[in-house]
Amino acid sequence: MPVNLNVLEQFHAVKGIEIATANAGIKQTERPDIVVFKLSEHTRTAGIFTQNAFCAAPVTICKQHLQQTQARMLLINTGNANAGTGQTGFDNAMELCQVLAEANSVAVNEILPFSTGVIGEPLPMQKILPVVKSNLNFSESIWFDASRGIMTTDIQPKGFSKQVEIQGETITVSGISKGSGMIKPNMATMLGFIATDATVSQEIIEQLCSELGEQSFNRITVDGDTSTNDSCILMATCEAQNKPIESEKSEGYSELKSVLLEAFQFLAQAIVRDGEGATKFVTIQVEAAKTQREALDVAYTVAHSPLVKTALFASDANWGRILAAVGRAGIDDLDLHHIEIYLDDVCIVEKGGRAASYTEEAGSKVMAQDEIQIRIHLGRGKESETVWTTDLSHGYVTINAEYRT
Amino acid sequence: MPVNLNVLEQFHAVKGIEIATANAGIKQTERPDIVVFKLSEHTRTAGIFTQNAFCAAPVTICKQHLQQTQARMLLINTGNANAGTGQTGFDNAMELCQVLAEANSVAVNEILPFSTGVIGEPLPMQKILPVVKSNLNFSESIWFDASRGIMTTDIQPKGFSKQVEIQGETITVSGISKGSGMIKPNMATMLGFIATDATVSQEIIEQLCSELGEQSFNRITVDGDTSTNDSCILMATCEAQNKPIESEKSEGYSELKSVLLEAFQFLAQAIVRDGEGATKFVTIQVEAAKTQREALDVAYTVAHSPLVKTALFASDANWGRILAAVGRAGIDDLDLHHIEIYLDDVCIVEKGGRAASYTEEAGSKVMAQDEIQIRIHLGRGKESETVWTTDLSHGYVTINAEYRT
Repeated sequence: MPVNLNVLEQFHAVKGIEIATANAGIKQTERPDIVVFKLSEHTRTAGIFTQNAFCAAPVTICKQHLQQTQARMLLINTGNANAGTGQTGFDNAMELCQVLAEANSVAVNEILPFSTGVIGEPLPMQKILPVVKSNLNFSESIWFDASRGIMTTDIQPKGFSKQVEIQGETITVSGISKGSGMIKPNMATMLGFIATDATVSQEIIEQLCSELGEQSFNRITVDGDTSTNDSCILMATCEAQNKPIESEKSEGYSELKSVLLEAFQFLAQAIVRDGEGATKFVTIQVEAAKTQREALDVAYTVAHSPLVKTALFASDANWGRILAAVGRAGIDDLDLHHIEIYLDDVCIVEKGGRAASYTEEAGSKVMAQDEIQIRIHLGRGKESETVWTTDLSHGYVTINAEYRT
Repeated sequence: MPVNLNVLEQFHAVKGIEIATANAGIKQTERPDIVVFKLSEHTRTAGIFTQNAFCAAPVTICKQHLQQTQARMLLINTGNANAGTGQTGFDNAMELCQVLAEANSVAVNEILPFSTGVIGEPLPMQKILPVVKSNLNFSESIWFDASRGIMTTDIQPKGFSKQVEIQGETITVSGISKGSGMIKPNMATMLGFIATDATVSQEIIEQLCSELGEQSFNRITVDGDTSTNDSCILMATCEAQNKPIESEKSEGYSELKSVLLEAFQFLAQAIVRDGEGATKFVTIQVEAAKTQREALDVAYTVAHSPLVKTALFASDANWGRILAAVGRAGIDDLDLHHIEIYLDDVCIVEKGGRAASYTEEAGSKVMAQDEIQIRIHLGRGKESETVWTTDLSHGYVTINAEYRT
């Protein structure tokens, strides 16, 4: 079961965002497998996408369309990632955009397509096309349905919704995400959709999407495998009556950024909490690094170490494995004597070896928790970074070693 | 059980190398836990060591001693890695060198110390010192005993021995290695000792050790975790009557290099075959890369991908996972349309997607084997690299998630 993840059933609607869901029968589940967002005409949209060179056809199209014009609709299907499908995959995705555009009287490049599910199989067009052509039933209030509609093998839907006062106006932020690893049979994984009704300039929405994505979706790792389909979209419908937020100095900028960061981090962390076979939610914080890059290198080396991850699964305070992972992170001139490593507040390593004050009892107590912080103080500079990850359990192997049939 | 790994019981003795083993009771096993090599006075020695910044005390001392003088003895203990032990660890290792040097009338810096086993616990000096002080019983013919004496949680001892004719002289190469991951509780892992009686210059022995180490011990990975103690030593006793091999142009150089490469690769691959929980032996070959570096980046990204490794465990020809791993290896301007991926001789990926000729049946047949080659043709240049790895099984998680107690 996911680690401390509650299901959100009641979302605040976001003025200017309507959603439709449908079941095209791509997957054999009771859940919807098609989700369509309709965005009001003032909506400003920004996206961040997978860095994987083998990115899926819909990702390529999303990037092109976002550069050309403002998005008016998002079309999401689960059950099939349309990745590793060559030219046919591209043509299929474009055809879906075309058909949805015609049915809703928008331009084809105003559609952003997203697919998630099995890699390398052609989209079942005969199942999806009739749904996309049909008269979809849009509503402002089916965010929960949408959060279920984008799930693949997620155990739980993931949602965030909050209202805050900005410039005396009530501003809403709602969002959904999906993903739990790159999962059986070969799911192409992470999607995130976050919307606000705040009035914001295009420049600011792009900047926020990229900056907040860095601090959230780009700081989580279940198994280190980047999917071919990862996408995160931030939409501002500009329907709220706040004075436009056009720069970092605008009134309300920092309040908006703060609630959006909360949304991004909650939805990103929810993916880790629902990570494949996860039994722990682990925060790895590296501080006093010379550069951001080296802080991240250390954090990811620890987060990806199968030995650290299996020790976490075993609730074993095996500090030697953490120390060895820090040591092989490729940091130049690392002075071991300045490094301190903590499990929550328990110092486990100092001066190149086990901390004098350390007791197995204190370490084991922290490791028994289902939420653990590993804090690594490099003693070299002022930069710090945080990533979130899970343990490596038998559940992970079972999920990923099952046959695709 | 290890994948296709036979136990070698009969070694050819290497003229100029004598070995003693003893059981100091560091570990509770019937096997010896102390191994001492005595090298004849003409022996030339070279070593390669872990790049881990938290390298163990004996590694630091080995490097210093090798720079200062020729080695006359190697002192190896298992059961305790003397890593993460700070100044005390360094002092303990030096004391053991001192005592062994006095008992055998050699200089302290003519001793190379090696430790493998638990990280972070002080060496049990009261157990080791009496053995090191004692009158050790050296013999040319106990290589098999030595191969067992350096084991920690290895399932099988690992040995190589071969005689070849060089310049009409019979030249012997024998070697042993140990390691199978960075294992429970936190073994600091890989050791390799290879000896020949060939007469070789110091320059050549150093060059061979570094070059062959690159093509063997530095191309294997079980879990991507580099231990704090990894060491590999190449010794040439110069007792054979061949004309000294002093350059790459010397008569016999290429024959010697060839048999030493065989020894290095056999002993390195033996570690993978005996990898933790291994059920497959996997060769990952990347070819037509622009640079060696990018070939290695792709090979290691695939080799370390938990998704590829669990698919290998499941004998599932899940080509999408291999493709996704190649895509996230961080190669600039990767043109997907030039990439081909093969399982043995079966083409699974071409032109950015599943190969037209591919059938699940053909892929599954290869994946069912216990030895599998994944060949990735990047279509960008002329460099190629090969690494060897294993699958990720429940056995791996079980071994590494067990408590240290």
